[in-house]
Amino acid sequence: MIKRYSRPEMADIWSDLNRYRKWLAVELAACRAMEKIGLVEAGTADKIQPISNKLDPAAIEEIETRTKHDVIAFLTHVEELAGPPARWLHLGMTSSDVLDTATALQTREALDLIIARAEALEAVLAERSKEHKDTAMVGRTHGIHAEPTTCGLTFALWCVEIQRDIERLSRAREAISVGKISGAVGTYANFPPEVESEALASLGLKPETVATQIVQRDRHAEVMAALSITAATIEKIALTVRGWQRTEVGEAREAFTRGQKGSSAMPHKRNPILSENLCGLARVVRSHMISALENVALWHERDISHSSVERVAFPDSTIVLHFMLHRAEKLVGGLVIDKERMEHNLNLTGGLVFSEAVMLSLIKTGLGRQAAYEMVQRCAMAAHDSRGALSFREALQRDEDVVGRLSMEGVEKLFDLRHHLRHTDAIYARVFKG
Amino acid sequence: MIKRYSRPEMADIWSDLNRYRKWLAVELAACRAMEKIGLVEAGTADKIQPISNKLDPAAIEEIETRTKHDVIAFLTHVEELAGPPARWLHLGMTSSDVLDTATALQTREALDLIIARAEALEAVLAERSKEHKDTAMVGRTHGIHAEPTTCGLTFALWCVEIQRDIERLSRAREAISVGKISGAVGTYANFPPEVESEALASLGLKPETVATQIVQRDRHAEVMAALSITAATIEKIALTVRGWQRTEVGEAREAFTRGQKGSSAMPHKRNPILSENLCGLARVVRSHMISALENVALWHERDISHSSVERVAFPDSTIVLHFMLHRAEKLVGGLVIDKERMEHNLNLTGGLVFSEAVMLSLIKTGLGRQAAYEMVQRCAMAAHDSRGALSFREALQRDEDVVGRLSMEGVEKLFDLRHHLRHTDAIYARVFKG
Amino acid sequence: MIKRYSRPEMADIWSDLNRYRKWLAVELAACRAMEKIGLVEAGTADKIQPISNKLDPAAIEEIETRTKHDVIAFLTHVEELAGPPARWLHLGMTSSDVLDTATALQTREALDLIIARAEALEAVLAERSKEHKDTAMVGRTHGIHAEPTTCGLTFALWCVEIQRDIERLSRAREAISVGKISGAVGTYANFPPEVESEALASLGLKPETVATQIVQRDRHAEVMAALSITAATIEKIALTVRGWQRTEVGEAREAFTRGQKGSSAMPHKRNPILSENLCGLARVVRSHMISALENVALWHERDISHSSVERVAFPDSTIVLHFMLHRAEKLVGGLVIDKERMEHNLNLTGGLVFSEAVMLSLIKTGLGRQAAYEMVQRCAMAAHDSRGALSFREALQRDEDVVGRLSMEGVEKLFDLRHHLRHTDAIYARVFKG
Amino acid sequence: MIKRYSRPEMADIWSDLNRYRKWLAVELAACRAMEKIGLVEAGTADKIQPISNKLDPAAIEEIETRTKHDVIAFLTHVEELAGPPARWLHLGMTSSDVLDTATALQTREALDLIIARAEALEAVLAERSKEHKDTAMVGRTHGIHAEPTTCGLTFALWCVEIQRDIERLSRAREAISVGKISGAVGTYANFPPEVESEALASLGLKPETVATQIVQRDRHAEVMAALSITAATIEKIALTVRGWQRTEVGEAREAFTRGQKGSSAMPHKRNPILSENLCGLARVVRSHMISALENVALWHERDISHSSVERVAFPDSTIVLHFMLHRAEKLVGGLVIDKERMEHNLNLTGGLVFSEAVMLSLIKTGLGRQAAYEMVQRCAMAAHDSRGALSFREALQRDEDVVGRLSMEGVEKLFDLRHHLRHTDAIYARVFKG
Repeated sequence: MIKRYSRPEMADIWSDLNRYRKWLAVELAACRAMEKIGLVEAGTADKIQPISNKLDPAAIEEIETRTKHDVIAFLTHVEELAGPPARWLHLGMTSSDVLDTATALQTREALDLIIARAEALEAVLAERSKEHKDTAMVGRTHGIHAEPTTCGLTFALWCVEIQRDIERLSRAREAISVGKISGAVGTYANFPPEVESEALASLGLKPETVATQIVQRDRHAEVMAALSITAATIEKIALTVRGWQRTEVGEAREAFTRGQKGSSAMPHKRNPILSENLCGLARVVRSHMISALENVALWHERDISHSSVERVAFPDSTIVLHFMLHRAEKLVGGLVIDKERMEHNLNLTGGLVFSEAVMLSLIKTGLGRQAAYEMVQRCAMAAHDSRGALSFREALQRDEDVVGRLSMEGVEKLFDLRHHLRHTDAIYARVFKG
Repeated sequence: MIKRYSRPEMADIWSDLNRYRKWLAVELAACRAMEKIGLVEAGTADKIQPISNKLDPAAIEEIETRTKHDVIAFLTHVEELAGPPARWLHLGMTSSDVLDTATALQTREALDLIIARAEALEAVLAERSKEHKDTAMVGRTHGIHAEPTTCGLTFALWCVEIQRDIERLSRAREAISVGKISGAVGTYANFPPEVESEALASLGLKPETVATQIVQRDRHAEVMAALSITAATIEKIALTVRGWQRTEVGEAREAFTRGQKGSSAMPHKRNPILSENLCGLARVVRSHMISALENVALWHERDISHSSVERVAFPDSTIVLHFMLHRAEKLVGGLVIDKERMEHNLNLTGGLVFSEAVMLSLIKTGLGRQAAYEMVQRCAMAAHDSRGALSFREALQRDEDVVGRLSMEGVEKLFDLRHHLRHTDAIYARVFKG
Repeated sequence: MIKRYSRPEMADIWSDLNRYRKWLAVELAACRAMEKIGLVEAGTADKIQPISNKLDPAAIEEIETRTKHDVIAFLTHVEELAGPPARWLHLGMTSSDVLDTATALQTREALDLIIARAEALEAVLAERSKEHKDTAMVGRTHGIHAEPTTCGLTFALWCVEIQRDIERLSRAREAISVGKISGAVGTYANFPPEVESEALASLGLKPETVATQIVQRDRHAEVMAALSITAATIEKIALTVRGWQRTEVGEAREAFTRGQKGSSAMPHKRNPILSENLCGLARVVRSHMISALENVALWHERDISHSSVERVAFPDSTIVLHFMLHRAEKLVGGLVIDKERMEHNLNLTGGLVFSEAVMLSLIKTGLGRQAAYEMVQRCAMAAHDSRGALSFREALQRDEDVVGRLSMEGVEKLFDLRHHLRHTDAIYARVFKG
Repeated sequence: MIKRYSRPEMADIWSDLNRYRKWLAVELAACRAMEKIGLVEAGTADKIQPISNKLDPAAIEEIETRTKHDVIAFLTHVEELAGPPARWLHLGMTSSDVLDTATALQTREALDLIIARAEALEAVLAERSKEHKDTAMVGRTHGIHAEPTTCGLTFALWCVEIQRDIERLSRAREAISVGKISGAVGTYANFPPEVESEALASLGLKPETVATQIVQRDRHAEVMAALSITAATIEKIALTVRGWQRTEVGEAREAFTRGQKGSSAMPHKRNPILSENLCGLARVVRSHMISALENVALWHERDISHSSVERVAFPDSTIVLHFMLHRAEKLVGGLVIDKERMEHNLNLTGGLVFSEAVMLSLIKTGLGRQAAYEMVQRCAMAAHDSRGALSFREALQRDEDVVGRLSMEGVEKLFDLRHHLRHTDAIYARVFKG
């Protein structure tokens, strides 16, 4: 677990204590199901239940140094706390019945926190999108000015992608909400399947359709994929903010709090450090993706090579993504948008962003596509090479071929931002229904 | 494209010719939609349509060496073939309108082939599962004998995982069935959204909710995740076959065809080369996963860094997975199961596989869990150390404490395979409904 | 192999024909070594040698469909061409003796091409570095203006990194220049080690210190690491070019050839497509890194899971990196540097890039670090917030505290670019020795 | 940091306290170098030095919540502890001067620990190799019996690969032993290069040839590659042990300590859990490799996206590899080799492992390669299909063609293990020189 990037509510889920509590919850759920069919003395689970608050991770760890087996250490500890009734726990079960079922519970809890934060991020994106619905800015492809768009559309783009992420995370949550209480190799050798279905139902889980010793790891890989893609969405947001905040662009900047210092050397600096940090953290999350895929193929009814990977990957990836979502929400919410600068930049190329509109108008006069393209390119290059002395519009208006086909006023009309963005409403209607 | 691992029907999808045909299909669909609202002269698309069979990839490539832009080269070629009506094509569109929409069509076709093969694999797994429903074999965890299971359950395990893969692939198919015809930065600057919805509907696609210049790459990452996880499932199957075919295990082996040679040096060899190959190919497929995630975050309205990655990753990963599924189907279908050897191995440890049943019986007599564990472990180690001179059953029957609690006959009864596997039917009922 | 990103000299190395020729070369080298110690009839290799020009990949492939074993198919083909003497080939050898030794030869050839191109790139970087030794530009950290640097230093930075890459590639070349002719499990069961050392020496290779059936794959992983890191260096160059070419920055741009078109929709576009392409291709190269690591651990004396991976990864990664190096050389060589724009941008913030110098001067007057920092930050923010109305220098000169400590002229003197860059020569001396 | 897989000496290196001490060491080294040339008041560093033992990570963290800048928080803390002289620290330096130089020191310390453990592993491998020089065992390719080898050769194989790892780690240690004290963008704007060379020399580091704001990240990627490949070597060792310990193979097993329990359910289990754990941990180490490559290309003179990755990746990967090496040493040292079982398995196939020797003898009688191959394969298959009723030797001796060419005694002689392994000494001589 990465302290610097941990928020307490998520760190708690992956704490030793919570893990052991989940283990006990699984043992007790199975015990109760066995009581029901008479395999275990009635009332056993109720007698053990109260020790849940006395579980002591350090004591368990101490026992593990001897047994070299975590679940056996845990059961020994429980027996020390609860006495004779504990003898009935784990009856006919294998360690993985406890471990995998508990991991499902922990992962689901982690996904619930993540989904909640993703929804919060979605909300602030929606808000900022509506706020800047009419804030025109230049659209950039290849880092080069392309055609006008709006700042609001960018927020809407992210908003709708986070919605897709929430969908993927929710499906992954369902895929992982699966436990397994079926014994050493998944054959229910020592108790009937009803014990499993009953116990898992009480925990809100479904049984693995066919298990080996363990829940199958394609499910965990699906979770990791959903986490990684969501992290990539945040990276995308952050990368754009970094582009906007570049000194020469200056269209937006991260909120800068009182007392914050940008650089130990250069007092003038205001750096987009939240966004840069988010780009790095996306790498951290996705670094677990390949291991998650490597964990799917195990030897026969299971080998334990996946275990050490999961001890690291599941806490780390959910902790980091949760932190990222929280930070992204703050980033987006606090982002200072500089409308004036957006307008300034939009006009920087003297209207080159309307070059396509000009070309299309020329085509409509009956000119061939290639000829039109070259005619416009010729004026664009002239404007570009003049270093500001000649705007694109002026270049067109001095070009006899162009004016011959479109007239001076015709050229003028093509430089109409409002017309260019007339379909924004239609897009918004697709994102923000009702 | 990897010739050795390409099947022709999949290679065709990613051929230059098919790509250009898809491009033309997108251009014509957009053209027809524009005709409908009067933006383009009626009948244009119909006039151009016939050239679809005359597209010449080599000619296009030749033009591209000059223009250094693939779509412009394509349009130039089309204009050469179709004459003046071609002038109306691509009106107000950007290259990505064509490219991304065509990629969606190709990827969907690829996924259709893949899903079909996955279903074929599922069918043969189901068949072999039913065939070997009662073929008992030893379950192994950590590579060590654990408890009995059946060969059929292993096939069932794979069958149900492939079903989950098919679900993931189908969802990915839906995620990628999205096109984009909305101009340079996704704002419909030069034609209304109706052109897009109309054109995409005719191609069986939905519009990207909010686009930049391109369809958003979280969708492509989702596809790659579904491909990678499916490849991991096949790796899992193959890894088990390799374990089964080991000389000392010998429980199953790949079909060996007439004339096949196992080794250039050792004429006696029969190696599980199909399975080994599948394990390697799973690595090839998943190697594209990280790049797919790296492709999500692009600069502003798009940069083109993702493009070269996708030219390689999409053909290669779908081609290889398709090959893998086909090979896995053949592998599973032809697998020679050695029931006798399975039975032989099951008995190899003189009944150690029933050690848990013994322990549970001891616990039921009122013995504490730890005490029972140690009593059984003591007999197990004695049997193990005797190198076959003493079976586990015998060791138990010589142990006074054990016999005192369970009796000779009581011990005998615990070594009952049929009892051990009594819940197999219940598991089958979950996999093979109806 | 990826046609689009293949250059013919590298594609040839990985062609079927070259592979088979290398196989024959290895067989003949071993044969000659065996002739020398009387294991094989003298003159055998000389009799077979001439068929090297008649090897027919298609014929071999046809045989392989029957034997399902590539080396056996090859030997059968050789026997068809060379008749009885071919009987002596491969005596006591295993397929991997041929395959791994041939792969070493091919990989070394590939690395030679790569190193040559890396040296060419180094040369052009050195040239441009010297050309722009005095071209001042703003240094940027976090995308924000920091302090002045020079354009030449950036080229020098890349130059020296490519030198480190060449070192890594050269070491990898040595690590991979290792063959293996020691039989089925590396024990020289059928001929003495002298055969191997003799044969490998004639091919310019060293014997694997201890082999299993194969040359150990940590060597191949080292090659892949060197390729991946070199690709990352090129990505770094390309990413900077993309930053320079952004519309608002405009400090450099890729050469734009006659006839080239930037966009199908927007005739004014000049996009940094070479650089964007290079960024994508770096992802392609490094995507093979994890598989190369997965290939190290094989079962016992070898399993063949690595083989399919290597069939794809080695050609693809060397082909792509070779293409990248060539393209990077062209990119760097043709890069159009806009000195005026660099100067313009350097002055964009009204001298904020000298803020550290101001702070240090204040400290030297005896002011505490924090106090100095805050004094400068105050003026910097005032300048920033004035949107150009007030330069940083003016803000300082209006600040009583500052002027009280430094005087008007003192402030003036701190804005001296030449002083700031006075140590550039010392850095150059480290890169360009002699 | 992953507590479960941390050994204290390595965890200490990456502790907050050690990091801050390294920062102070760098600041003081730079300060002393500045004193020497009169930039800073003589004796300053000596006055500050004593606070090194009073650095309080919690206090620094508390300040950082305000400044949001770690180095500034650190300097503030130092100023609180050391008073006025601290004003001279960090003069003209940038945070990365401190951070990157300190990271070099920490990484070098970590590599020193790792190399020491790798050498310890090498020693135990050498020892066991010598111990089992004459322990014959079957060599396996594809998991199938191939030809005889020895247990000692396998240890020698690993020993020599660890030697190569040590070489790679040592080169990486050199690559990373590079610091950087050259100001905000690496231009020595505020002090001459001599300060850097002097300060770094006192820390045992060399200056980065050309720096931006930071030391270049190809160096860190090289370190990560060396770590990942070493982890893969350990994975290879562990994977083989797992194969050896499989129930049906049983040739070696991990030492099982008193009190250890193999399974919570099955008291008979002795699982190779150390080895399985090592296989998983290799995945953990290599998962950082791609991020390390992603970190190379940063924006202009640096962006800070790499920072969060490194905070996780460097501690985690060195900690885990260090743990792995230690565990591997214990594993190898304690491995229980079962010579009898090795001999038993070697004979399992009734001599099939000598099939190549038979084929070669047939060829020497003048038979064509294919004919000889088929003759041997025929007998091999007969033996295989007889399920033990007929040994390979017997099958050969019943085959008239074989006996006609080799005679009964001739066949007999070919089954000579000692002859087969006669070149083992020569291989040992290459590994254990002198």
